[in-house]
Amino acid sequence: MPAHHRTEHDFLGEKQIPAAAYWGVHTARAVENFPISGTPVSAMPELVRAFGFVKKAAARANAELGMLTRERADAITAACDKLIAGQFHDQFVVDVIQGGAGTSTNMNANEVIANVALEAMGHGKGRYDVLHPNDHVNASQSTNDVYPTAVRLALWIGIDGLLESMATLRRGFEAKSTEFASVLKIGRTQLQDAVPMTLGQEFSTYAVMIEEDEARLREARALIQEINLGATAIGTGINAPRAYADLACRYLAQESGIPVVKAKNLVEATQDTGAFVQLSGVLKRVATKLSKTCNDLRLLSSGPQAGFGDIRLPPRQAGSSIMPGKVNPVIPEVMNQVAFEVIGNDMTVTMASEAGQLQLNAFEPIMGWSLFKSITHLSNACLTLNTNCVAGIEPNRELLARRVRESVTLVTALNPIIGYEKAALIAKTAIATGAPIDEVAQSLGILTREEIEALLVPEKLTQPQGPA
Amino acid sequence: MPAHHRTEHDFLGEKQIPAAAYWGVHTARAVENFPISGTPVSAMPELVRAFGFVKKAAARANAELGMLTRERADAITAACDKLIAGQFHDQFVVDVIQGGAGTSTNMNANEVIANVALEAMGHGKGRYDVLHPNDHVNASQSTNDVYPTAVRLALWIGIDGLLESMATLRRGFEAKSTEFASVLKIGRTQLQDAVPMTLGQEFSTYAVMIEEDEARLREARALIQEINLGATAIGTGINAPRAYADLACRYLAQESGIPVVKAKNLVEATQDTGAFVQLSGVLKRVATKLSKTCNDLRLLSSGPQAGFGDIRLPPRQAGSSIMPGKVNPVIPEVMNQVAFEVIGNDMTVTMASEAGQLQLNAFEPIMGWSLFKSITHLSNACLTLNTNCVAGIEPNRELLARRVRESVTLVTALNPIIGYEKAALIAKTAIATGAPIDEVAQSLGILTREEIEALLVPEKLTQPQGPA
Amino acid sequence: MPAHHRTEHDFLGEKQIPAAAYWGVHTARAVENFPISGTPVSAMPELVRAFGFVKKAAARANAELGMLTRERADAITAACDKLIAGQFHDQFVVDVIQGGAGTSTNMNANEVIANVALEAMGHGKGRYDVLHPNDHVNASQSTNDVYPTAVRLALWIGIDGLLESMATLRRGFEAKSTEFASVLKIGRTQLQDAVPMTLGQEFSTYAVMIEEDEARLREARALIQEINLGATAIGTGINAPRAYADLACRYLAQESGIPVVKAKNLVEATQDTGAFVQLSGVLKRVATKLSKTCNDLRLLSSGPQAGFGDIRLPPRQAGSSIMPGKVNPVIPEVMNQVAFEVIGNDMTVTMASEAGQLQLNAFEPIMGWSLFKSITHLSNACLTLNTNCVAGIEPNRELLARRVRESVTLVTALNPIIGYEKAALIAKTAIATGAPIDEVAQSLGILTREEIEALLVPEKLTQPQGPA
Amino acid sequence: MPAHHRTEHDFLGEKQIPAAAYWGVHTARAVENFPISGTPVSAMPELVRAFGFVKKAAARANAELGMLTRERADAITAACDKLIAGQFHDQFVVDVIQGGAGTSTNMNANEVIANVALEAMGHGKGRYDVLHPNDHVNASQSTNDVYPTAVRLALWIGIDGLLESMATLRRGFEAKSTEFASVLKIGRTQLQDAVPMTLGQEFSTYAVMIEEDEARLREARALIQEINLGATAIGTGINAPRAYADLACRYLAQESGIPVVKAKNLVEATQDTGAFVQLSGVLKRVATKLSKTCNDLRLLSSGPQAGFGDIRLPPRQAGSSIMPGKVNPVIPEVMNQVAFEVIGNDMTVTMASEAGQLQLNAFEPIMGWSLFKSITHLSNACLTLNTNCVAGIEPNRELLARRVRESVTLVTALNPIIGYEKAALIAKTAIATGAPIDEVAQSLGILTREEIEALLVPEKLTQPQGPA
Repeated sequence: MPAHHRTEHDFLGEKQIPAAAYWGVHTARAVENFPISGTPVSAMPELVRAFGFVKKAAARANAELGMLTRERADAITAACDKLIAGQFHDQFVVDVIQGGAGTSTNMNANEVIANVALEAMGHGKGRYDVLHPNDHVNASQSTNDVYPTAVRLALWIGIDGLLESMATLRRGFEAKSTEFASVLKIGRTQLQDAVPMTLGQEFSTYAVMIEEDEARLREARALIQEINLGATAIGTGINAPRAYADLACRYLAQESGIPVVKAKNLVEATQDTGAFVQLSGVLKRVATKLSKTCNDLRLLSSGPQAGFGDIRLPPRQAGSSIMPGKVNPVIPEVMNQVAFEVIGNDMTVTMASEAGQLQLNAFEPIMGWSLFKSITHLSNACLTLNTNCVAGIEPNRELLARRVRESVTLVTALNPIIGYEKAALIAKTAIATGAPIDEVAQSLGILTREEIEALLVPEKLTQPQGPA
Repeated sequence: MPAHHRTEHDFLGEKQIPAAAYWGVHTARAVENFPISGTPVSAMPELVRAFGFVKKAAARANAELGMLTRERADAITAACDKLIAGQFHDQFVVDVIQGGAGTSTNMNANEVIANVALEAMGHGKGRYDVLHPNDHVNASQSTNDVYPTAVRLALWIGIDGLLESMATLRRGFEAKSTEFASVLKIGRTQLQDAVPMTLGQEFSTYAVMIEEDEARLREARALIQEINLGATAIGTGINAPRAYADLACRYLAQESGIPVVKAKNLVEATQDTGAFVQLSGVLKRVATKLSKTCNDLRLLSSGPQAGFGDIRLPPRQAGSSIMPGKVNPVIPEVMNQVAFEVIGNDMTVTMASEAGQLQLNAFEPIMGWSLFKSITHLSNACLTLNTNCVAGIEPNRELLARRVRESVTLVTALNPIIGYEKAALIAKTAIATGAPIDEVAQSLGILTREEIEALLVPEKLTQPQGPA
Repeated sequence: MPAHHRTEHDFLGEKQIPAAAYWGVHTARAVENFPISGTPVSAMPELVRAFGFVKKAAARANAELGMLTRERADAITAACDKLIAGQFHDQFVVDVIQGGAGTSTNMNANEVIANVALEAMGHGKGRYDVLHPNDHVNASQSTNDVYPTAVRLALWIGIDGLLESMATLRRGFEAKSTEFASVLKIGRTQLQDAVPMTLGQEFSTYAVMIEEDEARLREARALIQEINLGATAIGTGINAPRAYADLACRYLAQESGIPVVKAKNLVEATQDTGAFVQLSGVLKRVATKLSKTCNDLRLLSSGPQAGFGDIRLPPRQAGSSIMPGKVNPVIPEVMNQVAFEVIGNDMTVTMASEAGQLQLNAFEPIMGWSLFKSITHLSNACLTLNTNCVAGIEPNRELLARRVRESVTLVTALNPIIGYEKAALIAKTAIATGAPIDEVAQSLGILTREEIEALLVPEKLTQPQGPA
Repeated sequence: MPAHHRTEHDFLGEKQIPAAAYWGVHTARAVENFPISGTPVSAMPELVRAFGFVKKAAARANAELGMLTRERADAITAACDKLIAGQFHDQFVVDVIQGGAGTSTNMNANEVIANVALEAMGHGKGRYDVLHPNDHVNASQSTNDVYPTAVRLALWIGIDGLLESMATLRRGFEAKSTEFASVLKIGRTQLQDAVPMTLGQEFSTYAVMIEEDEARLREARALIQEINLGATAIGTGINAPRAYADLACRYLAQESGIPVVKAKNLVEATQDTGAFVQLSGVLKRVATKLSKTCNDLRLLSSGPQAGFGDIRLPPRQAGSSIMPGKVNPVIPEVMNQVAFEVIGNDMTVTMASEAGQLQLNAFEPIMGWSLFKSITHLSNACLTLNTNCVAGIEPNRELLARRVRESVTLVTALNPIIGYEKAALIAKTAIATGAPIDEVAQSLGILTREEIEALLVPEKLTQPQGPA
């Protein structure tokens, strides 16, 4: 064998590993077994960093409890710091879609950390007699507690970013709501003209929806904070010293700055993926509402001549390769598509969760990957929506004002005076004849023009009036 | 015990059965075990009739092969004829959502048929020593072949009805397409004004979509025709005579008039629910497209003053309890909701199918019930959509014509003459200034008014021109 | 016209109404328009009662603010009390699947209440000049605030019931967890034998999962408490007196005993259905975990001879129409199916929510109906699961004990002593030869039998050991 | 400006483009607008190649109809050949998730082809006065016909690969079915022991399921062949010569070797995405059944000591980082996860399809991407499942034989002789006492041991017996 390979073995036999690789035999087998998506785990840098935090916390706890020598523990924590700093991420080569409940990702981490540490200790890669991926890097651990913990940490970091993007977008809508506070318009229900409101009120709803979703997301994030580190294989803590779980959790919170807490029932926490389903359900909710918001933006800006035309979105690119000058709502459209993807991902997460059996859910890798995509894509879409669309929205003030003046639906405000049935008669006649409602009311002998004018001040119709 | 009860037993013990009930101990236990939805199997009359067909075909085959005496076979077939005629349906009291892979529905059928037959034979209900629900009514059968066969028959009948309703709706759209053949309008892509077309072209698409879906549904129905009658417990045909499967299938086709065929591999056919998934997927497709169609109808009729206003839907009821004269697109809206339900049902069917294990899928009852709802609701919604909406649609001819005259997007037709970039300049200027495109083109020195008028004849823009 | 009809009219014209009917012309049109599912609104008694509460609260607020005479208000509240008491529910005849954002249900309620009140006042039905469905029963209201409020109330009541059923089931699992606290068994991950645990630990997880879901459901219920009563048509409160919203909310809380609160932004609250999506997402989570639990129960009880056989479920009915003595896990199976239905319903709710446009979501009826089914069916399934299954579960003590004694996976506990690689060698050899691990360890010269016996005390392996 | 940039412009203004880039201003704007997933269109090489075919066919038709000079047409077709050969794929830099109905991908293609052609013609990049992305490369085309056509071609190629992978896996199962033809075992329904069958029969079902799915997939592929090339903007063929559509389709079939056909109604074909929904539904079906198959493989191989243990899967990697020697069914597990992903993708496709409006569906990019992933991942998972799992499966012959000998469910075969009720009594007693059924039958005085032995020959129970 030439110098550019080393030999490693597992209980299936020997395997040649490229000399430059920090990963080892377990990773090599996984790469052969799972040639599925072509996307390696390194595509989730948050997850690699999370493994750095988890393995470091474990090493510190193990050292303190006498399970690792100080020298080995120090070498492991130094290697972990490198992962946390973004180094060696390219060594995480296992496919994001993998069988085995995350074992391959965990072994990939164990091997990379071991070999990075070995080199730093002055040994060659593969000298597992000095520092072993399982016996030392994985000491007091199992994939079944380490992997879910790392996934949760990675999601926590991702959610943090999403929350920021959502807040940015919310503030964008809030600014527009203020800017449009005095722009009167006709509201619409079931796509049919309804009563007056302000464009500011309309845009305030988009901000409020996001605000509420931020609150829901924070609640879901709190569930993600609950970890099962120390549970080892099935939650019974086999092979971990009694004090290990609490210590490792404490160190993990310390190292990562994320307020993780130890689950009360570790057997339950090891098999349960309810927090992922809850998080995914909330992301679905976020997606649903952002999609609705973008549907509205596309409706309100439809036209320019044969649509609603309430607002204009800023042009961002030529809309058509054939229709010159056409501007399309491409930014809301991309959010719609991200929303559809997130809703699909939720189905994937739900099925994967339901498929868990007995003491473990073997399908966490697809859950983690689906959630990672949902979070990242939503976050990116929020930012482009704010910058490239919301910030530049302009109202068609003149058109909106004219429609309010001419609107038949203003008769609604006459109900308390003349009753629903007479008001309906006025409306029906006005729509059929095209005549304004004050004329109709007069000609039907129901109200005088003066009475109507006094009653129908659009500005007053956008909030409750009368007895307070 | 008073006369209004009789005692039956199974291997769990004795049970009092109301004297008037044609069902027996197995049904009684199922009613206690599954108090879930409150909807009994009788809510699917097609399924009860299908059981009549299946049990009759089985009895005929059994008699011919010497598995049943002629007397018993005759009594069974006479009882089945009553179910087929719509009698005794109220005796199918088991909940539509039930555990046990349909065993409770099958036993409900076995018991009802046995007791109906016993009475006709001059015996009291419960005289199973004379005619036994399992040994005779269920002879050569298992729930695992009888139940899926009956469900398929019931779905086949339902699909037939849906195909008729879809054809009715399609013809409604075809009629409108013809009626609107010469009504010019501006098309829209991405909710933005695009190039001209006719309203007839627009409505033709709705007809074509349905026509294609009818073809897909017929293909899915053909898969449903494949049955596993004769497979008995797991497809190996245990306890059925060698000639039974072919004979029973032949008689079933004869009795029901439905061209059922025996599956090639009965072990596979007994566990596989792929035909249900396929059918459900096609129903989802139908739903998706009808929902899109109704979204369009709601968009096109939006207004009356502040919307697209291309068409008017016939008013069907007061749209609002507060806004007088408001007319809402309630008929398309109900189709949208049915579509969302059908898409949800598809998810239920998919999960139930995926959950099948080894030689059987225990979750056929929820598949059958979900598919039954999808088919029935879609069928009903097609009919109300046609009668109460499509048939009465009217175009706003004047508005449509004006918009075509004034449309900036007509510049598209200038591309081949002046190039995309100059055309875009005209469009952009026209939208910004509100001036008509011929004026703009002239003032920019690109084309004369006469040149433009010769080029832009809207009628010619609705189909390819030039070199043929 | 004979005495068995009366004539009513709306702006579409006149209509004959059966004299006995308490509903009127709007309901009649809706029944014609929506012949979809055949299931009337009365199938949701909680919703009819909720309308009673809402209309009563509105009448009280209207009277206090001078919008209704005391006489009319009293007549309305008395009629509402009858609905609350369960009377006149059969008059809610509109299909549960209906277009129009709930207007038909609201008008059904307005008409029934008006006519019930009219009769009590000594007038004939249809005397709307005395008490009008719109002007009086619906005073200061719109479908768009009344209907979502009533749906929320109905769901709140339903959730309360579900929480009770879940608590019952949780206590069932807790009791079993205690009962099985000392039953040792081999745990399983990825369906492969893992390390020892107790059957009590295993059953505790089912209880904990439910407990956590109860907490999530309570959070979702809190969002449902937020109502938009007083928002009227689009949230601007048009036609409602200034003080009405607060007053009506307060009275509604008082009358119903449900702690409803007024939404901060009524425009947003009128169009937003996020609380339904959140609730549905949580119900999906509940379903997912109960389905997993039932999958486990079916796995653990598989056999009796060729399966896992860890436990025995109580026999509830004959499992097969052909295989005598077969007992199937029919109760867990029905829960699985309900779970699949709930997950499908979530998709329906999600799509309906996403489809909302501008100031209103027109698709609340299908959301309400889907959520109602999810809640009711889950609740019923929890109760039958507890009573007819969990309560009677028995362990196969002898088999479980033998498997622990013979298990190769006990070598896991040797890792900290001999390292992962030597332990793997023992395991591999033991599985291949069938020899017990102590013999193998001895023959490989790794450990003596005495050392192993001291290390491998199964009871000690179900919790962390060593340094505390 | 230094030489490493060139200036391009569109109707929004000027933009600096890296001199080395073959893409231009439209691509640059799209990259800014859609920083969503980080995955560029080049990740779908089939799509880039498909664009090569489409643009080449269009250029040939345009040249023939006098819409392009021969020189320009030749330059375009030569550039297209380079894309087809796999060159310049790295220039497709737009995100796979993009707004705008594919316009950005189309413009990316137009620009790359123009600039590749320009260089070959001896001009600098950006010399659009010589060869223009819109006027020449996109002549007679719109994104709205070109993009869906290219996506369909790409999917067709992908489906072809999937069909091959499925056939490979099917043959793997067929081989095992033959190999195991005489291995008797106990079948299972609802996870409870049922009647005997052969392991060959069991494995044949997996092959048959795939075979049927191959047929369904071929049907769905046939729908994908229908294209709308020549429809241009909205299906009316505006700006395309009359003969263009037929000619371009013919050349496309010729160039690509794929039997594309022109849709009958181009307006419908331009807006309809039903073929994508159908294809996705079929992929969902494939996923559902492969997931079921893998669930079975995991169940059948569960153990090694405390599970079903019917078969052994070949070990592929260490199953656990903590439990030495543990082998997990990681290959079936990865298929399960791919299946969950595909089912989620189907939801994405469904929602995107339903969201289409009027003359176009703006959400085709997410449909294309989702379908691409489903097809590719399924194909890869089939191959690893065959190679790394199915091919190495071994039965536990001895265990299976023993279980058949001892099985209580053999009493089923006694039904026709002694009736269901007596057989149930034997079964119940045998399970309760653990005594073999022949002893029980004898001691209950129902049959003699000799009678039973004659009746219960397991080999005969795996197919129908008796009267033929």
